[in-house]
Formats: sequence, structure tokens, C-alpha cells
Amino acid sequence: MSDGITIALDAMGGDQAPGMVVKGVEIALQRHPEVRFLLFGAEDEVQPLLAKLPNLGKSVTLYHTNEIVADDAKPSLALRTGRQSSMRLAIEAVADGRADGVVSAGNTGALMAIAKFVLKMLPGIDRPAIASFFPTRRGESVMLDLGANVECDAENLVQFALMGDVFARTVLGLIEPTVGLLNVGSEDLKGNDAVRGASARLRAMVTPIRFYGFIEGGDIAAGTVDVVVTDGFTGNVAVKTAEGTAKLFGEYLEAAFRHSLPARIGYLFARAALRKLRMRSDPRRYNGAIFLGLGGIAVKSHGSTDAFGFANAIGVAIDMKLNGVLDKIRVELARLSEAPSAPEPAL
Amino acid sequence: MSDGITIALDAMGGDQAPGMVVKGVEIALQRHPEVRFLLFGAEDEVQPLLAKLPNLGKSVTLYHTNEIVADDAKPSLALRTGRQSSMRLAIEAVADGRADGVVSAGNTGALMAIAKFVLKMLPGIDRPAIASFFPTRRGESVMLDLGANVECDAENLVQFALMGDVFARTVLGLIEPTVGLLNVGSEDLKGNDAVRGASARLRAMVTPIRFYGFIEGGDIAAGTVDVVVTDGFTGNVAVKTAEGTAKLFGEYLEAAFRHSLPARIGYLFARAALRKLRMRSDPRRYNGAIFLGLGGIAVKSHGSTDAFGFANAIGVAIDMKLNGVLDKIRVELARLSEAPSAPEPAL
Repeated sequence: MSDGITIALDAMGGDQAPGMVVKGVEIALQRHPEVRFLLFGAEDEVQPLLAKLPNLGKSVTLYHTNEIVADDAKPSLALRTGRQSSMRLAIEAVADGRADGVVSAGNTGALMAIAKFVLKMLPGIDRPAIASFFPTRRGESVMLDLGANVECDAENLVQFALMGDVFARTVLGLIEPTVGLLNVGSEDLKGNDAVRGASARLRAMVTPIRFYGFIEGGDIAAGTVDVVVTDGFTGNVAVKTAEGTAKLFGEYLEAAFRHSLPARIGYLFARAALRKLRMRSDPRRYNGAIFLGLGGIAVKSHGSTDAFGFANAIGVAIDMKLNGVLDKIRVELARLSEAPSAPEPAL
Repeated sequence: MSDGITIALDAMGGDQAPGMVVKGVEIALQRHPEVRFLLFGAEDEVQPLLAKLPNLGKSVTLYHTNEIVADDAKPSLALRTGRQSSMRLAIEAVADGRADGVVSAGNTGALMAIAKFVLKMLPGIDRPAIASFFPTRRGESVMLDLGANVECDAENLVQFALMGDVFARTVLGLIEPTVGLLNVGSEDLKGNDAVRGASARLRAMVTPIRFYGFIEGGDIAAGTVDVVVTDGFTGNVAVKTAEGTAKLFGEYLEAAFRHSLPARIGYLFARAALRKLRMRSDPRRYNGAIFLGLGGIAVKSHGSTDAFGFANAIGVAIDMKLNGVLDKIRVELARLSEAPSAPEPAL
């Protein structure tokens, strides 16, 4: 399946890098033994780690650089300087065709700025969006944008809907995914100009998108739609609020089981089932946000993730390539620009 | 304590009205036996319910009206028509001094529009904000705006910060509450013009507010600050996302306990502790959103709540009155307009 796929990795990005990157490669190789990896990072730090895992030798090539993009570096500065940074070199490996995708757990803003500059945008897309999976009552859904654009107009949201739709069809394998616009109510009059305008366009456009209409915050976890479309400000707050709430609930649960002797005994009996619950809501399983709209595959891992989470982010990049997501988005965009469009609705 | 307090109730608002309103009064009277209630609604529906609870007789006065604001009524229409609606009459009871506050579980938009028109705004406040408590790791915090204003500028956010600060001091009884602005990152450069502008003003202003700076979605449940300030679009999505996530987690937990025989046995042992957990995260405990910025006390209950939840919303209105929240906001606003203000920061 994954024959001939090569993934470029920023070995120095992330709180626990480069250790978790190298261990993440080891985990990823168990799932995708044929994939090859290009690692970019400091030889004196990465080489000893690789030496301890001789099995990785035939799958990994290390490219030395001492430059690193700092976590607090301004994206514009990281773009202008740091031409030899591990992040920049890994992205360039995608641009020049040596790799099929790049994964980094480094500075999000810098990764976005450099990836946008080096990989360019897909024709017909004005801005990239950060997309990610999340668990719902019905399984998994996709949400975008999670923070690339703090302000979005109706046209941006329509493009996000289109990219999210293709992404859900390909990577999630859904036949006819439903797409919803996040709003403060379900009625047509609710919300700001951007969401109302996007809704009107999506209803009028000739696209294969199954547009559900507006959804509310409670619909995210309920899995009311397969693709949640929103601006980067709201999406970023929503996804972090959900993570924070899940974490608090987990802590409440732990406290409840420590509460009394019977509760402790109960915990012993229910331990296996609770472990399953913990696995189900493990944020590492959903690690790996995709920069959709770029001319190449770029995946951002949480900066604080471990090897297990990083391996999942690598898996997202591999899935993107295996499913030909970018090509399919290109086809949809081309079809859309050729289609006889319905008259622009008056708002 | 609550001697002489009178609360006006829209007896017909909410999915389970008027039954849950009358039962809500019964529960509220157990906690605040001296409070008097003015109920506005259809005599043929409400009177039989009151007849079954003769103890309520001395505390409740029923005012008959057959008009009701429909759940899907447009706020502007509800404001122009329906002068005799149960909602309008209850609000007018506050305006003409017969009641100290109003509680309704009816149409939010209509309640806001009518309350704004009838009760007017506090001097110095441009727009009202919907505020509510929510549970955090550290206890309870306040968040506003939860949906009154889909678009806010920096000045609106500053006013919300000021009102939220007074609210936390009075109703939550905090000495020096911390106030945070919800954003997509903690650095000064992050976010849109509104949050950056509000942050600059709050840092420059001479106020008693302990301004923490920017917070992110994950900080809400963590209780990083006592008052979370945000625009109504983001706040509405965040609070509904948190509720949805907590609900999903609860369902996962239930499924885990049904998963196997040992898990079921474990549940029996841990039942008491888990009941405590359920109580702790019961959304009914946090029912009752305050419309801050109005010249009178108006509290919105969830439309789908039951008597227990409605009684909590009544409790919020009583707490607002007992603590003199509106008067204290008036004092702060007056002090602010007299204070020698620091020079407006250049952005």
C-alpha cells in the first residue's frame, strides 16, 4: 500500500524532540514498514538516537543542520531568516519532490508561513486552513479552520467547506459526508456576515457537497455533521475548549474513584473498561493537523506530544498521500470553476 | 437575607412550562422562603398547578395573560407585537418597580430585545452581555458574552471585562478576581483587532481590574482566570462545545460501565462516588444566564431545563439583587468615567 512513500520530518520541532521524533518513526514503521523517512536535524543529537535503533537504518536518512526555528519565533522572521533550519529543509524536501509530505511538531505559525511560501497554494484557494479529526458520538469528524486564519470571509469558508468535504471523502472514506457551518444558532438569520454569506453560497452552488446548514457548539461532539467548517478564531477556541473540558472531566472521574473505599474497589473491577474509555478519548490518537490548501502535504503535530502521538501525525501525512487528497481537491476546484454557477444570492 | 425581594416569572417560557416554572418556584421557596413571586401566564393552565401546591399561595401572585412569545419568533417582531405577552409583562414588572428581577426560559433573542427596550441600558454600557457561571478545576468562573453580540469591538470587550469583574466580586464573592481575554494564543500579537485593542486598553486603564491577559480555550475549564471575556459568537460556541463534550464523555463513561460484568460490578461499588461526579457536572446547577448591562435584573433560563434548573435560575436573580450587583456596576462605571485616564495606547 504505502510503497514508495517518503516523509520528511523536522527532527528538532517539539518539546521532546528529537527523541520523540525518532521513537515516533519506530512506531510508524511498525504500521507502515515500506515508508522511508528523511530526518532533518542536528547530527550530534539525532545520530546517537538512531544508533540505538539499528532497525531504522534502512528506512531513515539523516540530513544534518544545526539551525532550529525557536518556539517563540515570529513567523515572518522565521520565514526571512533560518534558510537552513530543520523545519525549512524538511518542507523544501516536499517542494523539490524528494518527499511526499512533511511533519513537524515545531512552531505552528512558522510552519504555516514557510510551508505557504515554499509549497504555494492550490489554484483557487486563497488561504490554507488547519484541519483535524476529532472523536464524536458517531465516530470521527473533521473540523477546519483550527487557527490559520483569525478572520475569514464567506468565500474563505466556502473554500474550507470544499476542501473539508474532499478530505472527509478520501481520508475518512465517507461516501457523502455532510458539511455544517458553525454558528450561534440554526436559523438563517443567526450569526455574522461571513457565515450567513457562506451558507447562502453553499446552498446556491452546484457542488457535490451535502450542505447541512448551520450547527452549534453542541453539535461538534454529537457528530451532527462529518465536516465542521468555521473561522480559525472560533475553531481554535472550540477545539481547545473541548480538550480542556475532556481533561477536567477525566480529573473529576479520577477524584471520584479516590473518594471512598467502595469507589476504589469499584475502580479495580472496572479498570479494563475504564482503560478502554481513556484510550477512546486519548488526544494523542487525534494528533496531526493538516494544512489544507497548500500545494504539498504538511502536517503539524502538537508541540507537547510524545512518540505515540507523533507517529499518529506521521500516519495522517501517509494517509493524505495514499488517498491522493491534494489531487482530488485540485479536481474539485477545477470542476467548480468550470461549472455553470447558480446566480449569486442576494443577501 | 432575602426579605422583601420579589421576582417576576414568565410562567409560559420553556419547553416544560408552565409546570416546571411552578415546581421551580416550590424548590426556590425552600431555599428562599421570604421571596415573593409574580407569575405571568395563562390562568387556566397555571391556576390548577398552583391549586395543587397550596403552600405556594401566600408567596405567589398570578397575573393572567393568554399571549405567549413563540420560541421561533423573531426578536424584532416579538418586541413590536405581543405587548401583553407573559414575557413582556414580567419584564415590565421590573421596570415599574413591582419586582426586583425577572426570570424567563423563553425565546432568548426576544427576551434580550424586550428587556433592552423596557429596562434600558446602564449609563456607559453600549451593549448588554450574557454572562454565566461554569465549573472549573479551581471552582467556578464567570464567562461573558455568551451570545448577545455576534460582533464586538475592543470597547465592548472592555465594558464586558468591567461588568464581569464586578459580577465576580459581588456574586462569587471574590476579593480580586482575575480577568482574561479569550484568544487563539497568549502572545500579544495573536488574535484579531478587537482582542488586541481590548488588551491594550485594559493594560493602560486605571481600573481595579486584575487583567491577566490573553487566555486560550483550554484555560476555560482549567479555571486559569475568574472572568473569561469574549465576543458573543466565540462565547456561545465555546460554552456549547464544552457542554457537548461533557455530555459525550458522560455517555462514553456509561458505555464503559455496561461493557462487561466486572465493569458492572465496579459500577455498583463506585455508584455513590459517581453520583457525586454527576452532580458536580450537572448543567442544571449552572442554569441561569444574566443579561449584564441592563438597567434591571433579567435572567435567562435554558429553554429545556426542568424545575431544578429553573429554581437555580431564580436563585441567580435573587443573588444579583441581594449583592446589589447593578448598583456596584453603576459605581464602577461612574468612577471610570471620572478617573484620569492613561493616554490611549497606539496599536
